[in-house]
Amino acid sequence: MKKHKLFTPGPTSIPDEVLLEMAKPIMHHRTEEFLSIAKEVFEGLKYLFQTKNDVLILSSSGTGAMEASITNLFSKGEKIIVINGGKFGERFVEIGKAYGLNVFDIKVEWGKTLKKEELEKIIEENKDAKGVFVNLCETSTTTHFDVKGYGEIISKYDDMVLVVDAISSLGAIPCYMDDWKIDCLITGSQKAFMLPPGLAFISLSEKAWNKTINSDLPKYYFDLKKYKKTLEKFDFPFTIPVSLIVGLNKTIKIIKEYTLEKIWEEHRKRAEATRKAISAMGLSLLSSSPSDAVTGVLLPEGIDGEQIIKFIRKSYGISIAGGQDKLKGKIVRISHLGWQDEFDVLTAITALGIGLEKSGYKVNIGKGIETAKEILFS
Amino acid sequence: MKKHKLFTPGPTSIPDEVLLEMAKPIMHHRTEEFLSIAKEVFEGLKYLFQTKNDVLILSSSGTGAMEASITNLFSKGEKIIVINGGKFGERFVEIGKAYGLNVFDIKVEWGKTLKKEELEKIIEENKDAKGVFVNLCETSTTTHFDVKGYGEIISKYDDMVLVVDAISSLGAIPCYMDDWKIDCLITGSQKAFMLPPGLAFISLSEKAWNKTINSDLPKYYFDLKKYKKTLEKFDFPFTIPVSLIVGLNKTIKIIKEYTLEKIWEEHRKRAEATRKAISAMGLSLLSSSPSDAVTGVLLPEGIDGEQIIKFIRKSYGISIAGGQDKLKGKIVRISHLGWQDEFDVLTAITALGIGLEKSGYKVNIGKGIETAKEILFS
Repeated sequence: MKKHKLFTPGPTSIPDEVLLEMAKPIMHHRTEEFLSIAKEVFEGLKYLFQTKNDVLILSSSGTGAMEASITNLFSKGEKIIVINGGKFGERFVEIGKAYGLNVFDIKVEWGKTLKKEELEKIIEENKDAKGVFVNLCETSTTTHFDVKGYGEIISKYDDMVLVVDAISSLGAIPCYMDDWKIDCLITGSQKAFMLPPGLAFISLSEKAWNKTINSDLPKYYFDLKKYKKTLEKFDFPFTIPVSLIVGLNKTIKIIKEYTLEKIWEEHRKRAEATRKAISAMGLSLLSSSPSDAVTGVLLPEGIDGEQIIKFIRKSYGISIAGGQDKLKGKIVRISHLGWQDEFDVLTAITALGIGLEKSGYKVNIGKGIETAKEILFS
Repeated sequence: MKKHKLFTPGPTSIPDEVLLEMAKPIMHHRTEEFLSIAKEVFEGLKYLFQTKNDVLILSSSGTGAMEASITNLFSKGEKIIVINGGKFGERFVEIGKAYGLNVFDIKVEWGKTLKKEELEKIIEENKDAKGVFVNLCETSTTTHFDVKGYGEIISKYDDMVLVVDAISSLGAIPCYMDDWKIDCLITGSQKAFMLPPGLAFISLSEKAWNKTINSDLPKYYFDLKKYKKTLEKFDFPFTIPVSLIVGLNKTIKIIKEYTLEKIWEEHRKRAEATRKAISAMGLSLLSSSPSDAVTGVLLPEGIDGEQIIKFIRKSYGISIAGGQDKLKGKIVRISHLGWQDEFDVLTAITALGIGLEKSGYKVNIGKGIETAKEILFS
């Protein structure tokens, strides 16, 4: 019997009790029963975002919320700065250009990060920029960016907001929206929130809400002012994925009971154990600033990552992710997101080791596991 | 024990086997297993749309697809004609204006329809219009519009497309995209498709695809050319709600096995039985061109529809819908959509009758049921 396990950076595994909760007969979304669930969910989201601001729920993938951050906060021709260190930084560049913004594109080498001081210098030369965009974890390169540090700089400017895509990391690693002075924070349902894809989340600081007033970019479905208005009644402007909200209510309860701090610490441990095991097996990491949400492994020359992934999925039901775009085939990515425990790390490491072996590259799996064990169970 | 039954025009009840299918452990969306499901789904959607064109799947509510129909087919300042007979006609007007189109707004009295000949005249006076928008069933007024007739007129114009919102009706009542010369057809998951909300569907004729080439309205998340491109590999540009696609594969199989013709006929029967029962109980219909997807009942003067709805939901777990905007409190709506059988009609009629009685308005329920029975079981 195969136990299917997801080590992909979304979708991630869903706890059984959440799957069963969502399998209950569907309810109508304009009933007292549902509104009381929605009320709990909106309250719980503030905890997950570590904010006093409202968190709005969109029926879309995370990209929809990324688009909303652009169309709601800016006006045609305005300058924005994008810290572009991978596929999802690139996405902000593309959306900005699609809506006629003047995009200052900071191209960061894939797998590298940008120092706070480097950003500071760039901003000083671009004081007319109205916003800075960054990914807390650039999923494609498994790289962590210093959002806290960036917030310290950007908050000094009255007319500049910090927009953070935390789609693959919120709930997995520390992120304090208010304390870190994040003006717009975005995430999705299918990562650390342990749900199927289909919901995106976005929260705006007061500074960001003020920017929505004069924003002249066209929008309708993602018009956040409309969402904000219905929120007063814990309602939604358009039909929301009811079953996902019911599931979300359940996962929020799980997270709250466990506490974010504990969950962050467990992600950190799983990530550290994975990284150290990778090194112990003689492999290299993709990122020089690795995120605790997902680990990228550089494969030895001549080894095809896509083949390894297919082999271990087919043979054992274990899903790890490959590289995107120019990294395709050259790396594999192991996510630590969501519903995982310590023993799952052993599974992922061993599966990768076997995959490498089958591709003709022998590694010492025992050494990897021994190293991981020391960190996981200390 | 209460059996919760939904007679709301979305969300509608979901077959048990579909709920259980969606409750299976989630799979990753970039696997052979999922792509083979997606392939089946894309093929099945062509049957549901009665088209040879591709049907694209969006992660959004139906409104997202409505927006996509505007932002992908038109350019700034172009004239469109909207047949606006209710809340969802109005929505097309709003989206068109939000994107800077020149909207010719045909205001149709709520509950009335627009004759083919009337539209013909309006188009003759507005030959510069690039598109005509209509709802196959205007859900807010439960009114059927003659899409087939409109298609005959509009197809004569080389540079004018017919955009049809069939969100609350596709799969419930006859709609032949190709034969009726519909250029853009839209629907959602939570109606006759018997799924939770979270997916929208849109299909374009060749004439409509040609319009996308020069369209200059800004878009990113809803850029259909991007969806079309990934479709070649049965893939999606952004993470799709995996569990809903798995459920959709199941409901499409149910619909195919049953056949659309049989399903349409059953909806027609349930709708006719409901309408005749309503009349037999001395009540009036809201619409003079009633749709077979949902029936609107005008309530007697002084009776509060919202109270009736709350009462029967609380007492019996039966959900019917109220009126929206200016119809709030004045009507109730009983949907015939999706997973319903003949006996469910008896439930809805009786529940409404009891609700009226409790509000102090006595109706002859037995007469209503007797009338319905004759139609349902003939």
